[in-house]
Amino acid sequence: MPNSDPASPPKPLTIEDILEVFEEGSDEAIAEICRIAHPGDIETAFERLDDEERGTVLKALPADLLSDLSDYLPSADFEKRVRTLPEEEKREVLDAMSDDELVDLLQEVPEKERPEYLELLPEEKQALSEDLLQFDEDSAGGRMTTAFAKVNEHLTVREALAQLEAQREEPEMLSRIYVVDDGGRLLGKIRLRDLAFNPRKSFISEIMDRDRTAILATAEQEAAADMIARYDLMALPVTDDQGRLLGIVTHDDALDIIQEEVTEDIERASGIGGERDMAYIQTPVTIHLRRRFGWVLAMALLGMISGYVLHTFESVFKAHYVLALYLPMVVAAGGNTGAQAATMVIRALSLGELTPSEFFHVVWKEMRVGLMLGGLLGLCIALQIRFLLPAVFSEGATGSLLQIASVVGLALTAQVATSTSIGAILPLGARAIRLDPAVVASPAITTLVDVTGLIIYFSLARVLLPG
Amino acid sequence: MPNSDPASPPKPLTIEDILEVFEEGSDEAIAEICRIAHPGDIETAFERLDDEERGTVLKALPADLLSDLSDYLPSADFEKRVRTLPEEEKREVLDAMSDDELVDLLQEVPEKERPEYLELLPEEKQALSEDLLQFDEDSAGGRMTTAFAKVNEHLTVREALAQLEAQREEPEMLSRIYVVDDGGRLLGKIRLRDLAFNPRKSFISEIMDRDRTAILATAEQEAAADMIARYDLMALPVTDDQGRLLGIVTHDDALDIIQEEVTEDIERASGIGGERDMAYIQTPVTIHLRRRFGWVLAMALLGMISGYVLHTFESVFKAHYVLALYLPMVVAAGGNTGAQAATMVIRALSLGELTPSEFFHVVWKEMRVGLMLGGLLGLCIALQIRFLLPAVFSEGATGSLLQIASVVGLALTAQVATSTSIGAILPLGARAIRLDPAVVASPAITTLVDVTGLIIYFSLARVLLPG
Repeated sequence: MPNSDPASPPKPLTIEDILEVFEEGSDEAIAEICRIAHPGDIETAFERLDDEERGTVLKALPADLLSDLSDYLPSADFEKRVRTLPEEEKREVLDAMSDDELVDLLQEVPEKERPEYLELLPEEKQALSEDLLQFDEDSAGGRMTTAFAKVNEHLTVREALAQLEAQREEPEMLSRIYVVDDGGRLLGKIRLRDLAFNPRKSFISEIMDRDRTAILATAEQEAAADMIARYDLMALPVTDDQGRLLGIVTHDDALDIIQEEVTEDIERASGIGGERDMAYIQTPVTIHLRRRFGWVLAMALLGMISGYVLHTFESVFKAHYVLALYLPMVVAAGGNTGAQAATMVIRALSLGELTPSEFFHVVWKEMRVGLMLGGLLGLCIALQIRFLLPAVFSEGATGSLLQIASVVGLALTAQVATSTSIGAILPLGARAIRLDPAVVASPAITTLVDVTGLIIYFSLARVLLPG
Repeated sequence: MPNSDPASPPKPLTIEDILEVFEEGSDEAIAEICRIAHPGDIETAFERLDDEERGTVLKALPADLLSDLSDYLPSADFEKRVRTLPEEEKREVLDAMSDDELVDLLQEVPEKERPEYLELLPEEKQALSEDLLQFDEDSAGGRMTTAFAKVNEHLTVREALAQLEAQREEPEMLSRIYVVDDGGRLLGKIRLRDLAFNPRKSFISEIMDRDRTAILATAEQEAAADMIARYDLMALPVTDDQGRLLGIVTHDDALDIIQEEVTEDIERASGIGGERDMAYIQTPVTIHLRRRFGWVLAMALLGMISGYVLHTFESVFKAHYVLALYLPMVVAAGGNTGAQAATMVIRALSLGELTPSEFFHVVWKEMRVGLMLGGLLGLCIALQIRFLLPAVFSEGATGSLLQIASVVGLALTAQVATSTSIGAILPLGARAIRLDPAVVASPAITTLVDVTGLIIYFSLARVLLPG
């Protein structure tokens, strides 16, 4: 929490200031800066440290600071540090953690050691944690917090206020007050100010907002983030399949989820596999290797098809070696434009602007864009060949300049149109069979259109060039 | 706003339901569904329509519905519709709009017509809009809203509550109450509940939270979104250079900004230029063409370097045409791994995990990853050649299988290590000279490493193969 002592507003420390202390400061200096800096800045600085440095920083923090920072530090590191605390301090830190962070930490603990940790908690928190541990980490239930207030619809405003008064020390709680029926099912919500400005005798059921927008605990966390974004919510209630209110996902979680999700999409689109568990710098070389090798090997094997095609056209190529001058260009133009098309379609799908039902609409659009893009490019390059190439050409290639210009120009047109269509079709097809469209990584498209490019280029050459 | 009539909770209409009515319904049906569906869902459905359909939907909406939906519909379309309204209704719609949406709309109006629009507004709103119009659309000032409450530090709780009571009809306002001094400078904030639960005689200055986290109006909107994400804020105050409070950027704006920003980054990384003003389907083919052609042409011209290199190695290639089998693979492996490295570095930079000061650390890491990745790949492929290739090889190529395997294996290693290094160096270099690292699009890296790949492959062949 930001420092709220009236005498000292939070100092505008930069990330670099904090980083300097983390890297070179004494234990006391580290603890001191963690006391005064904003936890959000500490988090950012912490992400830039390597393994060893993070260990040093965490060791320098006393239990009370650990409690304050528990919402901001990665749970794997945090768990390692908590493990080393004497029992009393361990209890203190665990008890001070918010329920969702606590569950994240417990998920880092090997299953058979969890009871030891759970026993340190007060009974109520123990039961709550056990409940929350049932949800998958990436589900709405795994992401939710139980820090919200709820009131029964049959209470009067006076009774509700009396009940809520007890929670006023927990500042987060009162921003979201939900209304439930006797069975705990979500009926709607109400704001503190509606309570404050209404007659004390009114019943909650008369003045509540009956907005029951909610998400199932088993739904994916991305679905929760999307709803929060679409409906501009501060928090989204999470229910079980009976409609019972279990918790809420908050707007700041939505931001984190969207950031994680986007990073995953971007990485997957470049053929980087697996989960991103750590910041870039913190990820060891071996994990980088493991995340990237799969696609690279797969693409290399696919690339053998292109090799085979190129090998097959030996006679055409050797007879017209001037084709070499434009071979990389024709092949690469397909890769570039195919990847562009795929990027646009994948992004539109993930923003919810497109559905696979618009398949033909999209493919038709990309074919037209591709034809124009390729035609324009082909024309530019054909003109370049016709008028600017005499020097190279005179070295004794076969076929007239005009013939070479036609081959290259037509090849570019056909290759780009093919590539944009493939770039649109693959992600839409993936989504249609319920795969994440981002699995159609750019490398896959590039490798595929390498093959079409070679076939188009040499086939045209075979037809249009003499001999 | 969600329907808050106690009798009818918002119906769970799907986007598809709404879309069906938009595409096929009568004007009455369209108006009816816009009355009952959540505006967030209407927005999503609306984004999937083409130009003509959007016109039809907007024409079907009466002025009161237009007012309700003004926060959710694209300002360009909205402006076109408002333009056709009779003066009285135009006044009504404009007056009902929130200040930030109104300014977005005014920005769509040609400058010389703006006074006409402004004159329709009540005086206060007119002045406010004129003030807000001064800020760049993409700055914190251009994004902020003035819908917040402020109180002077010298007021008592009683006086503050009386002042705020007047604003209770504007539900958004009271979630953010800021404290200012006599000069309007931001001093901190206070919550409604702190007012409610404190003695009426206390002074605001005694009970306020002196958190002065704020952003300059001239700062970029992304910086505002980053602060909201980092500090988990509900709203971020925006000030002028004197510290005077001008407005706030809210958490739902932060989500929108991050989504826009990410889309821009992703598109730029694939060599798609310009601003993304419209959803994918709505963007006409000619604009798609304009956004993509620049990079495609530039890359085609750069691709001529590769063509020149390939042309130069004519004698080596013709003498050992078996090299064709692995040429596309060697070249593409560089493109794929280079783009992977760039993606990871660009993403880490944009998440704030990396700074250019870590240049050598990152390049050293990518070089090692590249060496291992390339070495492993080279080994796999060399083994494949040595043991699985006799069929093709026996067709009379020169050089032993072992020699070919060495050329391909070593070329893959060198090419991948070079490419990951280039993929890391370019975005870090771009950031170091204060460019957006995303300008180093994957196509640029792919095209560059095409050149290195060809040089490495044929140079090794020249050295290691006989003749």
